Amino acid sequence: ALAAPAIAQDMPNINWRLASSFPISLDTIYGGATELSQRLQEATDGRFRIQVFSAGEIVPGLDAINAATDGTVECAHSVGYYNWGKDPAFACGADLPFTFSARSKNAYNYQGGGIENYNEFLEKYNLISFPGGNTGTQMGGWYRKEINSLSDIQGLKIRIAGLAGRVLEKMGAVPQQLAGGDIYPSLERGTIDAAEWVGPYDDAKLGFHKVAPYYYYPGFWEGGPTVSFFFNKGKWDELPDVYKSLLKTCCQAVDSNMLAKYDMKNPTALKELVGEGAQLRSFNEEILTAAYQASNEVYAELSAQNESFKTQYEAMLAFRDDWYLYQQTAEYTFDTFMMIQQRNGVLAQSEG
Amino acid sequence: ALAAPAIAQDMPNINWRLASSFPISLDTIYGGATELSQRLQEATDGRFRIQVFSAGEIVPGLDAINAATDGTVECAHSVGYYNWGKDPAFACGADLPFTFSARSKNAYNYQGGGIENYNEFLEKYNLISFPGGNTGTQMGGWYRKEINSLSDIQGLKIRIAGLAGRVLEKMGAVPQQLAGGDIYPSLERGTIDAAEWVGPYDDAKLGFHKVAPYYYYPGFWEGGPTVSFFFNKGKWDELPDVYKSLLKTCCQAVDSNMLAKYDMKNPTALKELVGEGAQLRSFNEEILTAAYQASNEVYAELSAQNESFKTQYEAMLAFRDDWYLYQQTAEYTFDTFMMIQQRNGVLAQSEG
Repeated sequence: ALAAPAIAQDMPNINWRLASSFPISLDTIYGGATELSQRLQEATDGRFRIQVFSAGEIVPGLDAINAATDGTVECAHSVGYYNWGKDPAFACGADLPFTFSARSKNAYNYQGGGIENYNEFLEKYNLISFPGGNTGTQMGGWYRKEINSLSDIQGLKIRIAGLAGRVLEKMGAVPQQLAGGDIYPSLERGTIDAAEWVGPYDDAKLGFHKVAPYYYYPGFWEGGPTVSFFFNKGKWDELPDVYKSLLKTCCQAVDSNMLAKYDMKNPTALKELVGEGAQLRSFNEEILTAAYQASNEVYAELSAQNESFKTQYEAMLAFRDDWYLYQQTAEYTFDTFMMIQQRNGVLAQSEG
Repeated sequence: ALAAPAIAQDMPNINWRLASSFPISLDTIYGGATELSQRLQEATDGRFRIQVFSAGEIVPGLDAINAATDGTVECAHSVGYYNWGKDPAFACGADLPFTFSARSKNAYNYQGGGIENYNEFLEKYNLISFPGGNTGTQMGGWYRKEINSLSDIQGLKIRIAGLAGRVLEKMGAVPQQLAGGDIYPSLERGTIDAAEWVGPYDDAKLGFHKVAPYYYYPGFWEGGPTVSFFFNKGKWDELPDVYKSLLKTCCQAVDSNMLAKYDMKNPTALKELVGEGAQLRSFNEEILTAAYQASNEVYAELSAQNESFKTQYEAMLAFRDDWYLYQQTAEYTFDTFMMIQQRNGVLAQSEG
């Protein structure tokens, strides 16, 4: 018989399944997985296919990463901190409060060892991961009453998950775990006082502004959260090199493109929310400073308990300092000047 | 005879040549082309190869785009504004003064019609282009004396190219065209008073701080300059769909990765420059406001003369306004708080 042509050996037909942590209704973040699938399929003429399943189709959204670990699926699209209860070091590949913006997170991930550090940790969970999306700095959530001082945080029942919940707990709040669909009725009834979700585009769909009008920023617990693709390590290792390289390239393109999508959609959504009554508020310095200190307390506790957390967290610190020094020069002053012009109302016209 | 396997038809062997506008010494920006070549080669197991030639190897750096137009090479890696003298609308795909940061430029490019708008224009030059890198907001250059008011700009001989030169000319400066290697001796002799180049990492290599110590920011003419891949349109059209899709994915990954590289390298380089005597200075509001007005005058002139310029420029304005409104919320306040902590000296340690 004729030997198979070389091509068939180095680019075999592969069909994988991906469990997303997100519902289809969160089109931007869910769309990262379908975009990966499409890019892969197009670039291999259909040889390498990934079928995407939304949250709940194969496993619940919060179990997507575990399903990749145990081989139920070959891959997951999720956010590492969903698994923080299993092991807090999972959060390091997603976001830690008061670390990076999307810009600096990307630099740390791709050029500062971030991807390698995370994958070193993930080996024990039989996973390898690459960034696959970012939302930019998230908003700080919706509040039924204004938050003017730390005393307004005391006893505040806020829907917030994971490590960020631990930080707010230290500040006196009472974190609540609620699925997305339960948030609106809980806010409406006053069972909870506040809820954080994502940013204007995603938040608008759930209508929180109608029942908790104060929209605070910044979401200091998510300055630049990375959404990640997780691959079962055994399955990854079986891939030919050509697919490994292609998959990494596709992940990076998806990562970049999700941020661009959010950045295009959020500004319009924010204007619409304000038009419908959302009241924009900035957390004041007292709140942010207390939150920063509470975060550092959490980091100290987690670092004492978990070597992988400590290693990854400390790898971020030197670059974090350098970045926010550098950021004070060209980028920040350019942005500041442009925002002043925006406030002067001259940016939308061709002659200011 | 046996028919060629289907695979050989949809993934043929292709060898292209790419003319870079950059010397190998500018490793980050030049490296965008070699990275594209490597990603492509790996993802096709060597079937689709692009051989990269540095500035001057096939054509002078400033002629790279034209070499792709006329088919001397299949592709170029360059910055659109290098061709602004031929047609000012070339600059729209690179950067225009006071338009976007890298973040917002990416949103405009990938999700706001930027790539499509640029390619509509490029058709008459037999080109199709995709973003292939970004430097982030550049620095405003090196000055032998401080620039404290508009009067200090009068008669200032500054090495600056293209559209930005036209803006500075309106402000009273005398723009000079000089190749990279001629800048240092001209600054040293005082033949010129100032020179702009890129940012800390690239600038440090040329040692400008030794002869023109005042290092100003921001480079308002390059808030988020896109470096681009340009493909000969006829050659592009001949590619099978599988390669077109792959090439676009690779370009976007390279685009994202170049910014990450600059963002990782620039902070360290800036610290070293300051350690060697560079004096950091911010352009004051008088200068920036005059520059913004001069830019708008240039835009009005170019829009009156060039329909393609006008169309692209005006396509940017609505999103520019929305972006810098949105930017005032979560992202800016997060960054501001982090910069305050940086100044307080607590970011490099695990416990602030």
